[in-house]
Amino acid sequence: MLTDLQDAYGHQLYDYFRGRSSGLEIVERDDGFIQANFGPRTYLSKYDKWPGREKAALRLARGKVLDVGCGGGRHSLFLQRKGLEVLGVDVSPLAIKVCKMRGLRKARVLSIEQITPKLGLFDTVIMLGNNFGLFHNHKLAKRFLRTLWRMTSPRARIIAESLDPYPTNDLFHLAYHQLNKSRGRMPGQVRMRIRYRKYCSPWFDYLLVSRHEMKEIISSTGWRVRRFIPERNQKTMARGQPYVAILERDARES
Amino acid sequence: MLTDLQDAYGHQLYDYFRGRSSGLEIVERDDGFIQANFGPRTYLSKYDKWPGREKAALRLARGKVLDVGCGGGRHSLFLQRKGLEVLGVDVSPLAIKVCKMRGLRKARVLSIEQITPKLGLFDTVIMLGNNFGLFHNHKLAKRFLRTLWRMTSPRARIIAESLDPYPTNDLFHLAYHQLNKSRGRMPGQVRMRIRYRKYCSPWFDYLLVSRHEMKEIISSTGWRVRRFIPERNQKTMARGQPYVAILERDARES
Repeated sequence: MLTDLQDAYGHQLYDYFRGRSSGLEIVERDDGFIQANFGPRTYLSKYDKWPGREKAALRLARGKVLDVGCGGGRHSLFLQRKGLEVLGVDVSPLAIKVCKMRGLRKARVLSIEQITPKLGLFDTVIMLGNNFGLFHNHKLAKRFLRTLWRMTSPRARIIAESLDPYPTNDLFHLAYHQLNKSRGRMPGQVRMRIRYRKYCSPWFDYLLVSRHEMKEIISSTGWRVRRFIPERNQKTMARGQPYVAILERDARES
Repeated sequence: MLTDLQDAYGHQLYDYFRGRSSGLEIVERDDGFIQANFGPRTYLSKYDKWPGREKAALRLARGKVLDVGCGGGRHSLFLQRKGLEVLGVDVSPLAIKVCKMRGLRKARVLSIEQITPKLGLFDTVIMLGNNFGLFHNHKLAKRFLRTLWRMTSPRARIIAESLDPYPTNDLFHLAYHQLNKSRGRMPGQVRMRIRYRKYCSPWFDYLLVSRHEMKEIISSTGWRVRRFIPERNQKTMARGQPYVAILERDARES
């Protein structure tokens, strides 16, 4: 359970939600790289601002939905409004508070480690906003995928977003990939923390993978990739490129 | 002289100027407080976006002008276009590069300590954008004001902006004022650094003072306060409140 001073993510979100901040997020990487972005604005953005890949992916949601890392609840609330039964979970107490204030009926403070079959049986698991990263690393990703297999119905889907970290010519990022390799980590296994005013999250690993790496991680977990949206990266090298993976239970392993 | 990795201010400014970033700045305080703001956007903002107090203050500039901490050169370029002779100085090499690319004819990489009568005789010294803070602390402020007295004409003015740090009910800021007092510093003597990607400035003291404190600092330096713009703080307690001081040479001390 995060302490209040550790809930940097929640505080920045809550303050922006209450109109008390300009909606900027600060992310610090363990090599000293730091960046500000418009995180809270994104976490509370309206449907018409969402990327096309997320809108397309959400059309594939059905039945009982688990939203892992639901943040301000934008995807959960969208699906709840469409009549689906949604449970949003997030490690941030203040994020869950915001979800409830915004009308999400089922929202719980849970870390990824606390997601178990006790929560019920789901037909769709969504991990948008790059939340495939919440699986932390290669080994835990396989373990959590197997857990999700045990708590989903036969026709279930996982809708997970990630970012291919390789299409970049940024020297700081390329050096970080090398640093990670040298310490036995995946190149896109980003150790980072969120900072907001004096609030500071614990360091955590956020895993960014290419489509190829995702396929490898998913193998022998009971899941298979049905499709990627988009199927391939664009040809720019400006920054890592996001995509959504649609995973389905593998009939061969049922 | 700042190394390239220390020129965080310059890199954020240069990247935004070249359209390579979203124009956010990260400022870290020595108690762990951190904040993102729209710094680079401000530093390159057009006249119609400037606060009224700055526009009013700039109408009082005349003759030969020294712009201390000129940043991206917005004030210098405005006065140069009005026909004044302006020298912009800044500790950031990349900021001075941006000034020159934008057309500022005289711009030099100099720290506050390197500003001496050797630069020539000036009629106006501007320190807008809270740049009274560049005086670092009470003692150095008095010393630098005396130096400026020796390098200015009899009718010279200093146009200096500061921020009254006291009108706040933010508990983190109030605790910081107390911390500063306990270590023998002025409450608004903010020890901070700028961070941008892997660039990080050295820690430096940036001095925020009330109008009353500014009057005290200026006493017996050869300067007196002609007026403040605005004369008083507003009645909100939302955050520290900025104001511009118009200083003139004190006839009694000439």
